[in-house]
Amino acid sequence: MLKSIFIILISITSSLIFFFFPSPPKSFYHSLFLSPSVTSNVSIANHLYTLTRRPHVAGTPQNSETADYVLNTFSSYSLKSHIVTYHVSLTYPLSRSLILTPQQPSPPTKFDLIQKTYEGDPYAEVASEVMPTFHGFAKSGTASGPIVYVNYGRVEDYERLQNIGVNVSGSIVLAKYGQIYRGDIVRNAYEAGAIGAVLYTDRKDYGSGEKWFPEARGMPPTGVQVGSVYTGLGDPTTPGWASVEECERKSVEEVEGSGDVPLIPSLPVSWADGENILGAVGGQVADDDWQGGGDLIYHIGPGPGFLNLSYKGENVIAQIHNVFAVIEGEEEPESFPDAGTESTAILCRFVLLGNHRDAWTFGAVDPNSGTAALLEIAERLWKLQKIGWKPRRTIILCNWDAEEYGLIGSTEWVEENREMLASRVVAYLNVDSAVSGPGFHAAATPQLDELLKQSAQKVQDPDNSSQTIYESWAGSAKSPMIERLGGGGSDYAAFLQHVGIPAVDLFYGGGYPVYHSMYDDYVWMEKFGDPMFQRHVAVGSLWGLMALRLADDKFLPFDYLAYAKELQKSTKDLEGDLTDTGVSLVPMFKAIGKLRDAGSNINGLIKGIEEKQGWKSMWKTDSLQVREVNDRLMMAERAFTDRDGLFERQWYKHLIYGPSKHNDYGSKSFPGINDAIENARKLNSSKSWHSVQHEVYRVSRAVAHAALVLNGKMT
Amino acid sequence: MLKSIFIILISITSSLIFFFFPSPPKSFYHSLFLSPSVTSNVSIANHLYTLTRRPHVAGTPQNSETADYVLNTFSSYSLKSHIVTYHVSLTYPLSRSLILTPQQPSPPTKFDLIQKTYEGDPYAEVASEVMPTFHGFAKSGTASGPIVYVNYGRVEDYERLQNIGVNVSGSIVLAKYGQIYRGDIVRNAYEAGAIGAVLYTDRKDYGSGEKWFPEARGMPPTGVQVGSVYTGLGDPTTPGWASVEECERKSVEEVEGSGDVPLIPSLPVSWADGENILGAVGGQVADDDWQGGGDLIYHIGPGPGFLNLSYKGENVIAQIHNVFAVIEGEEEPESFPDAGTESTAILCRFVLLGNHRDAWTFGAVDPNSGTAALLEIAERLWKLQKIGWKPRRTIILCNWDAEEYGLIGSTEWVEENREMLASRVVAYLNVDSAVSGPGFHAAATPQLDELLKQSAQKVQDPDNSSQTIYESWAGSAKSPMIERLGGGGSDYAAFLQHVGIPAVDLFYGGGYPVYHSMYDDYVWMEKFGDPMFQRHVAVGSLWGLMALRLADDKFLPFDYLAYAKELQKSTKDLEGDLTDTGVSLVPMFKAIGKLRDAGSNINGLIKGIEEKQGWKSMWKTDSLQVREVNDRLMMAERAFTDRDGLFERQWYKHLIYGPSKHNDYGSKSFPGINDAIENARKLNSSKSWHSVQHEVYRVSRAVAHAALVLNGKMT
Repeated sequence: MLKSIFIILISITSSLIFFFFPSPPKSFYHSLFLSPSVTSNVSIANHLYTLTRRPHVAGTPQNSETADYVLNTFSSYSLKSHIVTYHVSLTYPLSRSLILTPQQPSPPTKFDLIQKTYEGDPYAEVASEVMPTFHGFAKSGTASGPIVYVNYGRVEDYERLQNIGVNVSGSIVLAKYGQIYRGDIVRNAYEAGAIGAVLYTDRKDYGSGEKWFPEARGMPPTGVQVGSVYTGLGDPTTPGWASVEECERKSVEEVEGSGDVPLIPSLPVSWADGENILGAVGGQVADDDWQGGGDLIYHIGPGPGFLNLSYKGENVIAQIHNVFAVIEGEEEPESFPDAGTESTAILCRFVLLGNHRDAWTFGAVDPNSGTAALLEIAERLWKLQKIGWKPRRTIILCNWDAEEYGLIGSTEWVEENREMLASRVVAYLNVDSAVSGPGFHAAATPQLDELLKQSAQKVQDPDNSSQTIYESWAGSAKSPMIERLGGGGSDYAAFLQHVGIPAVDLFYGGGYPVYHSMYDDYVWMEKFGDPMFQRHVAVGSLWGLMALRLADDKFLPFDYLAYAKELQKSTKDLEGDLTDTGVSLVPMFKAIGKLRDAGSNINGLIKGIEEKQGWKSMWKTDSLQVREVNDRLMMAERAFTDRDGLFERQWYKHLIYGPSKHNDYGSKSFPGINDAIENARKLNSSKSWHSVQHEVYRVSRAVAHAALVLNGKMT
Repeated sequence: MLKSIFIILISITSSLIFFFFPSPPKSFYHSLFLSPSVTSNVSIANHLYTLTRRPHVAGTPQNSETADYVLNTFSSYSLKSHIVTYHVSLTYPLSRSLILTPQQPSPPTKFDLIQKTYEGDPYAEVASEVMPTFHGFAKSGTASGPIVYVNYGRVEDYERLQNIGVNVSGSIVLAKYGQIYRGDIVRNAYEAGAIGAVLYTDRKDYGSGEKWFPEARGMPPTGVQVGSVYTGLGDPTTPGWASVEECERKSVEEVEGSGDVPLIPSLPVSWADGENILGAVGGQVADDDWQGGGDLIYHIGPGPGFLNLSYKGENVIAQIHNVFAVIEGEEEPESFPDAGTESTAILCRFVLLGNHRDAWTFGAVDPNSGTAALLEIAERLWKLQKIGWKPRRTIILCNWDAEEYGLIGSTEWVEENREMLASRVVAYLNVDSAVSGPGFHAAATPQLDELLKQSAQKVQDPDNSSQTIYESWAGSAKSPMIERLGGGGSDYAAFLQHVGIPAVDLFYGGGYPVYHSMYDDYVWMEKFGDPMFQRHVAVGSLWGLMALRLADDKFLPFDYLAYAKELQKSTKDLEGDLTDTGVSLVPMFKAIGKLRDAGSNINGLIKGIEEKQGWKSMWKTDSLQVREVNDRLMMAERAFTDRDGLFERQWYKHLIYGPSKHNDYGSKSFPGINDAIENARKLNSSKSWHSVQHEVYRVSRAVAHAALVLNGKMT
């Protein structure tokens, strides 16, 4: 009886409140998020300036300070934030030496391997803090041998050398960076028998368009591209688990045995030093497509020039810091101030935005243009919260450490939180370098394509106020417009390829001459990258808007019909690789058909629910029904992972998207099938082609399982 | 405005309804479920009689008919039911021959290998349908050699033979069934160099207590224990995926290469034939613990008796049928009659009851005592539904096929529905043979121990109406009371060991003489197993009551504090195995401490929520908060699985519970650690002990991850 009276009283009261104070729809806040009254290029510039004042390599005190800066900034926006520290294996240079002995009677050249400051360089006073140029995880050692020029150092480049009778064994290779990940350059060299590797970036590869000459875009001849040569992800001493204090670790021997750290020493040099070395190489003239960007004619070698290369690095266990800010969702979860003995926040469904913070030097482009954009997003969300907005789902802003060494900060965190991430994360949105120049680029898992396009239609093009990002992006004749995320190029890798979480990666620009060099600083950004910081604002807008849609839309904005179409396209591409091999793709097409039907059905179901909810949604919380449909949408991508992983690369669980075996930056659809095809082409045995068929079946089953999940059914 | 009026009107109406027609609490229905007004031993007897009228081996037309019977019975109780068919590899006997050549001048004996009917045998007319005695998946072949008696055929038995200088190579072993799974008996024989194996059950092993002499309990001397000798699970041609039509299949060579099918021929024989063979074995006298249950003195051999064994089986792809009945949950899910374009039932959280249906012959004990109990549970639930009960969560009654061959029906279904099962199944409750005699037994994952005990306290002991099952169970001095589920003895294996779903296995009885023989029929059950079918009723009550608690309790009745204590106990047991090895269990104890804290915290949180909900729960559906806590409870067990699985036994993902490498029936805690210890004891190298430490770390991490899940947190 008492109960009934209570109900009546409360209904009357809340109806009155509802009548007088309706809350604005989410779209109101989303538009506000994009409006100039809320955005701030000045904030971004300030953050970038502060973050990049000193070099801040992972594991150094300077990068601990930048972590504190990010944490304090989040807190200043009233965001609940914290740091998670890991203890990871990193390497730093102790000594390096490179001596070129050309053909007699020319005297030897000892390269000084120093990036020089220039007149008026505002960073001259901290130049001594810049780490000597080196490769992260490079093998310590000394090697001496004739030089062989190996073009981009890809598998096909070595095949060409073999065809023209050039012996790489016992040589020091000189390779251009530009087509594959540098770790694969060193590994390919080792597998070809080289005893050392020197990498440089040729003028030809500094970027296309107008002036390719690097000095015109801020790269003095002494600029060197530092970087990691590790071909794994995460702390190499803790494969598959998190580097917490006192954790288990693999030994040095075990790590070297894994094949993921290089086994020959290597060094990066400037393009000027590279050209110098090339001047000492004779023998056959290189083919036209192997020639460089200047006047010098390149020869292959071996020799007559000799290189004496020496590198000594130290292995340390260093502390790295991931910084997080959490904006709790209002409906998922619901907060219960009196809910029990423990802290109230129940975190239920998450949208993640991620960017890394560690840099090889000052990091203005890579990665702190992204960090600055992330911090400015945080500021915008604070402004929205001040006027009453709360996201439906929880938003977490993630700032990773040690990405440069091998996606370490993000990977350790994913490995530590695997189960919760798998059951609760809706999507992961990554921005590494937000801006390096003009031109918008994006990669995504296909169910997010539509959201990406819709969001791009809401954000003004920073370089042409008469159109949206979408219009210039679509008009750029870039095909395909949206790339795919197989490669290990940034922190989305562990989320997508290890756990199976839908992901996006965004950036403005492309190749740029100061990449990973001492000259990637605030001055360069102001001068060349983004003078008005409006591209930064645009990235922040698009990034943040996607996050808001994912956090606020009642139904997750995923389209699996589009995913099925994309898979159909990729499978048709595969048909070309399999002509006359006897391998059948029928199971794939069948499974894709099931996914297509499932995608179509769930789209229809959602439409039906939205049309019929009407008045009902006010009285009865249909939250469990909406939650059930959303769970299917959220979990479908997981089904593309197979717990047994890729053959001989077990950590990679995703069967649709994963890195090419020979280029960690190269995105491959169906990496397992492709690995098997490559193997079968080499061996050409019926057993090896049978393995290809097996991999086709594996992917087909994963797609069929995704369809089952999307249908929300069991057989 | 209009909205407000609607709200007010509806609140008044529903309060009035609530006032006049409150619905009974779930406990009312649970008590009713147990009451004699609802239970029916007569129904059980009738079902058992019908199911066991003809032999019904997996894949035969007779077992298709039993599937229809189960389906129709479910439907007759108004339960939504369906069949899922798989196409699986099975084997059937074509021809068998066993000839004993004793020492000259005695003439050879050709065994007829036939189980004979007896006078008045009501099953005499269908005796011709009984399959000739054989081993499922036995190797076809002929072998001739001296006999070696190998006791139970365990690894330690072969070690003893080696110690006393007996050469097994080239022999036909005679082994007693009774300590390990028969597939391991054949495999151990093969690994010791034997060329054939004959298995029998010794009188000593027919069961303890009063008259062990089998005829006293219905087993004529011609009774033979048929069974599978496959050491894998699921269809051997589809490891890790479902045997759907036109699926990928492994070839015969690949299957034989997997190590899971035997590579020497084998046959089962009666105890009488076994004793006959033993009479022809000379050489050393067997140790006391190797002697049998009669007057004959057993010798080891080899010879002088020779056996000529011949077995020919056919490999077929047969159709098997799993039958399901679904009782949809009311709150999880909510049904929306007008919810959209597709059928409304949204199945959200599941409680599974499972039993298999296929038998080697008539299957009265194994398994149809369980099937009959399952059908009677269905009847009881129908009666509850008729008076208004609906479970909170969905209940699915599962009746598997081809369990006898290798848990095939359940494993294929788990492999097909892996993702949905992982994200939605609360628990799996198994009953294989419900009753084979007196005495209650149960095994469970530890978070279910308390529920098991509470339920046992609600059900009357069928053999002593003055007490509950719990009282006689606790009083039976059986220690530990609740066993653990590492072995592959029944259909819980795929649920627990492959996916990580909490599980229970229940039965009345123990060893019984007619196991897997032609004499396991309705007459035997009436005479020896359960004359009044009250043990069947008791099993149904306990089984069903646990399911009702899991389906109806607002918070899942899981206790992770108990799980932590059990893990602590198991780890302390492990300490004994690791004295003076240098292997540290500190990581384990640390992780268990975290689990203990997490278990304690969530128990406290639930208590707090229940105390404070009071009036609130009527107005605001706190379903998302309850759902969030329950999700943590549901998902914690999953964290004990590691996607990389056990070393060299990758399909087994659970790191706490899994089968011993040498006895598929043997339950092992920490199977990975134990495998590594066994290996290290053999090799005694520092690398092999290092592997033990690695396995300890792996389990520790899984336990730590489970704690994270239970806390509902990410770092």
